[in-house]
Amino acid sequence: MLLQQSSLFESMNKQGFEEIVFFSDPKTGLKSIVAIHDTTLGPALGGTRIWNYRSEAEALSDVMRLARAMTMKAAGAGLNLGGGKAVIIGDPERIKSENLLRSYGRFIETLGGRFITGEDVGTSLEDVRVIASETKYVTGVKYDPSPFTAYGVFHGIKACLDYLYGDRSMEGIHVAIQGLGKVGFELAKLLLDEGAKLTVTDIDGRKVKACIDIGGECIEYVESKRIYSVECDVFSPCALGGVINDSTVKRLKCRIVAGAANNQLENERHGEILSEMGIVYAPDFIINAGGLITVANEYMHGDVDIRMLKKEIEKIGDRLGRIFRMAESMPDSSGNPMSAARAAEIFAFERIEKISEMKNIYIP
Amino acid sequence: MLLQQSSLFESMNKQGFEEIVFFSDPKTGLKSIVAIHDTTLGPALGGTRIWNYRSEAEALSDVMRLARAMTMKAAGAGLNLGGGKAVIIGDPERIKSENLLRSYGRFIETLGGRFITGEDVGTSLEDVRVIASETKYVTGVKYDPSPFTAYGVFHGIKACLDYLYGDRSMEGIHVAIQGLGKVGFELAKLLLDEGAKLTVTDIDGRKVKACIDIGGECIEYVESKRIYSVECDVFSPCALGGVINDSTVKRLKCRIVAGAANNQLENERHGEILSEMGIVYAPDFIINAGGLITVANEYMHGDVDIRMLKKEIEKIGDRLGRIFRMAESMPDSSGNPMSAARAAEIFAFERIEKISEMKNIYIP
Repeated sequence: MLLQQSSLFESMNKQGFEEIVFFSDPKTGLKSIVAIHDTTLGPALGGTRIWNYRSEAEALSDVMRLARAMTMKAAGAGLNLGGGKAVIIGDPERIKSENLLRSYGRFIETLGGRFITGEDVGTSLEDVRVIASETKYVTGVKYDPSPFTAYGVFHGIKACLDYLYGDRSMEGIHVAIQGLGKVGFELAKLLLDEGAKLTVTDIDGRKVKACIDIGGECIEYVESKRIYSVECDVFSPCALGGVINDSTVKRLKCRIVAGAANNQLENERHGEILSEMGIVYAPDFIINAGGLITVANEYMHGDVDIRMLKKEIEKIGDRLGRIFRMAESMPDSSGNPMSAARAAEIFAFERIEKISEMKNIYIP
Repeated sequence: MLLQQSSLFESMNKQGFEEIVFFSDPKTGLKSIVAIHDTTLGPALGGTRIWNYRSEAEALSDVMRLARAMTMKAAGAGLNLGGGKAVIIGDPERIKSENLLRSYGRFIETLGGRFITGEDVGTSLEDVRVIASETKYVTGVKYDPSPFTAYGVFHGIKACLDYLYGDRSMEGIHVAIQGLGKVGFELAKLLLDEGAKLTVTDIDGRKVKACIDIGGECIEYVESKRIYSVECDVFSPCALGGVINDSTVKRLKCRIVAGAANNQLENERHGEILSEMGIVYAPDFIINAGGLITVANEYMHGDVDIRMLKKEIEKIGDRLGRIFRMAESMPDSSGNPMSAARAAEIFAFERIEKISEMKNIYIP
């Protein structure tokens, strides 16, 4: 018996999945699961993760979780794309080979463009280029999305300031950045350029030093665990997921949480707690969509007009404003406003529902 | 946890599966699994079965078993097709609707012709036509394959007679037919036309009567359970699978087993027992491929030239002759010939292996 009684279809239905595909090629050792969550808005886009899962069940539940998140992110970013994700099971160091990636690429090609993929954990830009030698359904091989993610977060922070203070200016605004990776570092530069003061942390001392070299007196460093309790305007998580959790949320002394990390809230309830604390939360999948907008434009247009792309990414700010107002306008039965995180989900799925209603026509 | 530790990929690898797809559409109640076993020779062809499986595990194991059998059948028939199968989970009477079949058709279309489908248990010709309104990847809607299956079995029986007696003539040959459905009845007519004597059985008395109306004195009827022990030249199973089993094999008093039913041997060992008993066995998936050859020709050519099609089906006889000689030429360590059933599997897979070796070239 391969499937337990707890049904895959039941789980697909409950979460709104259209399709899950298992691809196997023993000649190359390829074992891949592709999850296509929702294609109402367009083809499903999502990276290919190579990971040494302990079991197929773990791989399946991960690929489903990630695919569904991509649907929300694409819908929330106003893109004409659906959500999907792929995993290849195995230790990337041990299983990755040109043959395996090419075999995987041939399988992706058979999906006929219903699923478009790119880089993710365990796959490099080089890997994606090998996959692309067998399929045209890849993206993110020309432009590094990180600076564009940072650019979107920067404009998202401005929108939060505008909503809270009625002023978008960064002058004298204090931002605590958790993580100075490709996105966090770029964000720090954008903020410094406009006169913000920063408190930063990173486990890599060299990154902290490089940042201080740029910002000088405008930057203060704190140990990783102290970043949560920095008194500041904006706390900006740009590293790990799940950082807003039971042990951290009560320590926050910021007015705004707005950063680039995925899945910042450990669960939905932490979004409500932020709302109750009066902290403005920029839903992660809305504010960090700049990278996705970049790879989507690369896929659709090949070459990207950077000026046009930046204009599109700046809209992340307007979108956050709409979501904050939406949340205010939908209080619960006790009169408390809806959490911004919840409002963002509704915002994303409403778009899918509207298009879905329009789709029952015959196009020959 | 949706998958148990006993791995779906392990099972796919062991049996040589390329791809298994789960399609879900809660709006129409569609829950479908498509298994694509092997596409070395061409797109995977296999019917769509609607069945009220007790569990998803049962549906999965059934669709995999049936898909693999289609690979062997297509390869053994010399067709440029691979093997696949689809199941839709549910009671056909309760779940079937135009919406469900159309939704299923749209999913089949997304496979881009890697899988071609048609009628099977639980689906009618009408259903396949509804599916065809959403996808071009269907076949078997123009020509009834049953008479062509019968035509192939008829020529297969001639080949067995030639191999055993050195004479293809049907004159005075005694054939016991189990089952007078669409194929069995047509076979009876072909045999009577060339002077054979028949013993027949069917649970439906009207079918027996209709047959006797045609054959008169040349036909004898026996009860279902007595058909195995009829002393005859040919026993022709044209009804259920698994009829050559521990309880029936020792009762056979025929020289040849050659019929239209699928999966006649309960398991591989029963093929060896027939061989040891000196009974010539025409492997089912070789001799009953006339219907598949018909739907394959319909798919490839749209309209079928019946004369050309019959020529192609007649080759089933030559193919059986080759398989019998192959079995003789490969004795086991005790000097006993290989069973024809085993030789037929080798015959089919050898073709796939040869083509597979040739396929590693780049076609732009």
